[in-house]
Parts: sequence; C-alpha cells; structure tokens
Amino acid sequence: MEHLEQNFMLLEKYLPFWNHLSTPQKTILAQNVFSASYSRDSHIHLGENDCIGMLIIKSGEMRTYLLSETGKEVTLYRLGAGEVCILSASCVLHTITFDVYIDAARDCEILQINSSAVSRLMEENIHVEAYAYKLATERFSDVMWAMQQILFMSFDKRLAIFLLDECSRTKSDIIKMTHEQIAKYTGSAREVVSRMLKYFSSEGFVELSRGGIRLLDKKRLKELL
Amino acid sequence: MEHLEQNFMLLEKYLPFWNHLSTPQKTILAQNVFSASYSRDSHIHLGENDCIGMLIIKSGEMRTYLLSETGKEVTLYRLGAGEVCILSASCVLHTITFDVYIDAARDCEILQINSSAVSRLMEENIHVEAYAYKLATERFSDVMWAMQQILFMSFDKRLAIFLLDECSRTKSDIIKMTHEQIAKYTGSAREVVSRMLKYFSSEGFVELSRGGIRLLDKKRLKELL
Repeated sequence: MEHLEQNFMLLEKYLPFWNHLSTPQKTILAQNVFSASYSRDSHIHLGENDCIGMLIIKSGEMRTYLLSETGKEVTLYRLGAGEVCILSASCVLHTITFDVYIDAARDCEILQINSSAVSRLMEENIHVEAYAYKLATERFSDVMWAMQQILFMSFDKRLAIFLLDECSRTKSDIIKMTHEQIAKYTGSAREVVSRMLKYFSSEGFVELSRGGIRLLDKKRLKELL
Repeated sequence: MEHLEQNFMLLEKYLPFWNHLSTPQKTILAQNVFSASYSRDSHIHLGENDCIGMLIIKSGEMRTYLLSETGKEVTLYRLGAGEVCILSASCVLHTITFDVYIDAARDCEILQINSSAVSRLMEENIHVEAYAYKLATERFSDVMWAMQQILFMSFDKRLAIFLLDECSRTKSDIIKMTHEQIAKYTGSAREVVSRMLKYFSSEGFVELSRGGIRLLDKKRLKELL
C-alpha cells in the first residue's frame, strides 16, 4: 500500500493529466508502473517488435533513431530528465504507423508504464488520449527540425552545431566520442565526420586525440553557423 | 439561418468530434466556416507567416512540403477529398514549432475554419484538442514514411513507386508532369529525375515524349521494388 502511495506521488509529479483521472484510473496507473535502469548504449526499444509502454525519464538521456535495413542510423531527437517518451508505446497510438529505435545515450533511471494500462486509460479518458497525441506532436516537431538539418544544412554547420551543443550539454570542452558515434548522432557517415574533423583541426577549431575531440576555438566554430 | 443549418450538416459529416460539442460550440464553428477554391499549383499556406485555419478538402488534392532558404522543396505528403488539413492551423497547436508550405496539387474545393475558432474550441473542449493532435500525429506518420524513403531508399525504387502510384491515382498510363515537378514530389533534383527516366526509357519501362511519360511495362517497374 505504501508502494502504491509512493507511485501516486511520482505520477502526479510527471503526468499533467493526473488530476483528470478518477480514483480507479489512478490506481490502474500506479499498479502498472515500475522502475527500470538502462546502462549507456543499451537498447530500450527495438522497432516494431517492441511496445514497452510510456517511459518517464527520471535521470539520464535517451536517443531515438531510425534504422535502415542496411544498418544505417539517423538520429531523430534526444530526451532527458523529466521528459516522457511516448513512441515506445506507439502500438497503442492508432495514428502512428512507423517504428523507431530507442537507446540509452547515458545511464538512465526510468519509470515504465506498460502499454496495456496506457491503452486502457486512453480509451476511458479523453484527457489521457489528448496528452498522448499532444506529446507525439511535440516529437513530430523534433523530427522536422532534424529533417531540415539533414536535408538542407551543409555538413560543416551541422557538425559545428553538434560539437557546440555537446560541450554545453556536458559542460566540458572535451567530447569523448568516436567518429562513428558522432556520425550516428548527425545522420552522417564515419568517413564524412573524419574528413570534416580533420579540416576543423587544420583550421585550429579543434584538437584531435585518441581520447576524443577538444574544442580550441568556439568563437570561430560559431562563425560557421 | 438556412446557411447555418447547411454548415451544421457539412461539419457533422467531416468532423468526428461534432457530437461532443455543445450547441453554442457548434454555432461558433458553423459561423466561422467558409468555402474557398484554389486552382492547381496555387499556394494555400506559406510557412510561418500564415495560419489560415483547419481545411476540410471537399475535392482536389493538396501537397505539403518543406522549403529551404535556397528554394529546395521536399514533399512531405499529399491529402485528398474527405481529409482534413491541420498544419495550416499550426499556430494554434502549441507543440508544433515548425512550418510547412501547402499548395493545391489539383484544383481544390475546401471548407476553411478560421484559426481563432479552432483555437477557442480546442481550449474549451478536450475532444477538439484530442482530435487536432491525433490528426497531427497522422501527418507525423506520413512524414516519417517520406523521410525513410528519402534517407534510405535508392532513387530508382523511389521513382518507380512514384510513377506506379501516380498511374493508379489518375487511372491513366500517361503521367503529364515535367521532370522538374516530379523532382519536387520525390524530394530529388531535376537532373537526377531526367537521368533515371532516360535509363527507364532505355530499358523499355517507359516512353518519354513532350506530353509526358507513358508507362509501358508496369510489371518490370514493380520488379524494381
């Protein structure tokens, strides 16, 4: 019982539709939420064979991406602490007909609400349905942003934006990622990333080493934008 | 008054949330809907400066696309008779932060519900809000389909799919479009379209003439897929 009350408090904090639920509906949710941990780079949701439910991110970061039949990845967006992932419950959103992959980009602590509970509440309560689709539309905006970058922006700008964002996100001037990983995040190929980083290095924007990429001249990187 | 009653009947036919509206809400909608016509290739909605409202397509076809600063177009999806266009009211959907362009791909007869009426009803009635976001999520699925085609599929397949779809859509074996127009629809460049059509022609899949493209061998085109 104590466990249920604890879940009540947690869910109320994260879910804006909480006060529109009846007491039995609150109980259904609280009985169907459980904690899970994912370590960095592990898979959370694997395309169409998966429908693990709605995920509340308590800490960490998730990366959502497309995966082609030939193994090419294109990153769509990332979610962090306090955000709710809905595409992991896409099977219960009838107007979603595509599938994505979701990995832990950093170690994640999450609350997972299983799909059947989400589905039942969406059918019973219009506020839950509106919330789910509103959240999906927020991801639609994220995807459109990524799409415009990939389709319209030259790669030097995209890579500069990525390096600067990553620095401010981690509050460090050193980015500890491989060229392969950066390629996945920027929807590019490893060779293209390596070539552009070599150019950035020759211009003195960055310094490349085995440990990663050190940003030397953010001001001139920003001038590329 | 007769005019209002006519609008009631039309709106009831197209809008699934109609029966969840109060009588005053129905009246607001009926007072804020008007008919409009757009001839083929005219602009209906022009990016961020525009918010013309929700559009019910009575007949014709609309094309929604992205437009880059340099004038490059990428078609996202098309909507036809009986469908409702919501991205033309994106300013009243708070989780939509991108802008698209919408043209008439064929002559269109539409019912236009102005944005302020849509906005007011979304605030007053949760069923309208859920409908709007659910519809936006349907467009999200369309965009993801287009994105996967553009990012992952080789252009011979994409062009074959486009030609076959266009034939079945128009119920004709002749496609009366320029290479430039086909490039816009397939998110490609005119030169690429011309080169691939020349190849298709040399293989005997199609016949090229000034009037358009005639499909000669649909069976072998389908084998490309």
